[in-house]
Amino acid sequence: MSGGALSGWLAIAGLGPGDEALITPDVTAALAGASDVIGYIPYVARVAPREGLTLHPSDNRVELDRAAHALELAAQGRRVVVVSSGDPGVFAMAAAVFEALEAGPAHWRDLDIRVLPGITAMLAASARAGAPLGHDFCAINLSDNLKPWPLIEKRLRLAAEADFAMAFYNPRSKARPEGFERVLELLREVCGNDRPILFARAVSTPDEQLRVVSLGQACADMADMRTMVIVGSSLTRIIERPGARKPDPILYTPRSAS
Amino acid sequence: MSGGALSGWLAIAGLGPGDEALITPDVTAALAGASDVIGYIPYVARVAPREGLTLHPSDNRVELDRAAHALELAAQGRRVVVVSSGDPGVFAMAAAVFEALEAGPAHWRDLDIRVLPGITAMLAASARAGAPLGHDFCAINLSDNLKPWPLIEKRLRLAAEADFAMAFYNPRSKARPEGFERVLELLREVCGNDRPILFARAVSTPDEQLRVVSLGQACADMADMRTMVIVGSSLTRIIERPGARKPDPILYTPRSAS
Repeated sequence: MSGGALSGWLAIAGLGPGDEALITPDVTAALAGASDVIGYIPYVARVAPREGLTLHPSDNRVELDRAAHALELAAQGRRVVVVSSGDPGVFAMAAAVFEALEAGPAHWRDLDIRVLPGITAMLAASARAGAPLGHDFCAINLSDNLKPWPLIEKRLRLAAEADFAMAFYNPRSKARPEGFERVLELLREVCGNDRPILFARAVSTPDEQLRVVSLGQACADMADMRTMVIVGSSLTRIIERPGARKPDPILYTPRSAS
Repeated sequence: MSGGALSGWLAIAGLGPGDEALITPDVTAALAGASDVIGYIPYVARVAPREGLTLHPSDNRVELDRAAHALELAAQGRRVVVVSSGDPGVFAMAAAVFEALEAGPAHWRDLDIRVLPGITAMLAASARAGAPLGHDFCAINLSDNLKPWPLIEKRLRLAAEADFAMAFYNPRSKARPEGFERVLELLREVCGNDRPILFARAVSTPDEQLRVVSLGQACADMADMRTMVIVGSSLTRIIERPGARKPDPILYTPRSAS
């Protein structure tokens, strides 16, 4: 009864931003029960090898192939974890798996598939800086690999008009390095020069770097592919604390708006 | 050296949506080292009592008093954890603590204060339903306790125009029960009747209930104070899977937009 396809399952799991102490026990348990782990090379490298576990690291930009591979293995009865950094549902592998599921053979739909949430980059960055997402906010992927540039600009203008705080994933695309400079110009135009902006690089890892500047001071090379960017709303504030042992200013958005 | 105010600290910690397997080890460690736990009654009730730990449950709507109490205890040298459900930085206690910090005595700014992220309700709900937040999205608190109603309507219209998926916290305010009905009417007007909407109640607890309907079918009493609501973008799709052991449809937003 337990052999074959019926015993297979697929979990799409979030490893959080980097620190093991930010991985949920739910994800740890799924990895402990897995026969196969699939994902982008640096994320699979975060999973400890052990007997009985096959690691399948793959390159970037092959998300749909990776997703189909995971579904096929689960359909063969394997216990498969697809790993994402952060949360798998935020600009990560969960949507790719469901795209592959929808396009694939009908029997894949009967599989046991679960998404296991994780600490997504914007919430890790926000926590380190204070609480810049403490009021209404939006999350925008700035990569134009998967959507046209004018749509990104349209969303930025509407988000600024709505006075959302904004969290940006993938601020610097290798394919179009000038894109983020245009984002900063657009934001200065609609939000002014004084709005605070957070550059949070490699949060929760030994390489962590946080920097809060004004939009007027911001320049594109403050971000790389490991940087999460958060722009405050019109109400976002900075609390200086030069006397603290860790004297970083606190960036936060009050709960109230008028 | 270790006694007195210098040894005190304050952690503002996210307990996630309810399931203990969704609490990060980082938060578990902070609770294990705490002398005092402060928070809204049902959240403090999730922390196991033990010798040496004082629990301070308090009522709803006293966030600033609670925050000041936590800061004062930390300044006295206590090891204090303020607990929120979900993530403390998303419509929760982190912003309230920083409001109290900014308004309070200068020496509070020297305290060791950390925000420990958690799995916020929208990501737990999204994971259970599939990946409705797999493309650009926004998060809006629908309670009008802390902002005027016209601002909520303005944000909803701009978010719809930007074609964000939308996650709604606190969809039903006790003080204004008709508010959510107006939200649904506005969304039908700007997004049409066919747009999918997810009602995710008490996710990851024994009371969990998920329901995906169209905006045309949605009515206000599908949500209560324990419900997270997610409205899809124009691209959000449903995959039916009547043959699965858990035959809930999958709701997801593809990664690409044109």
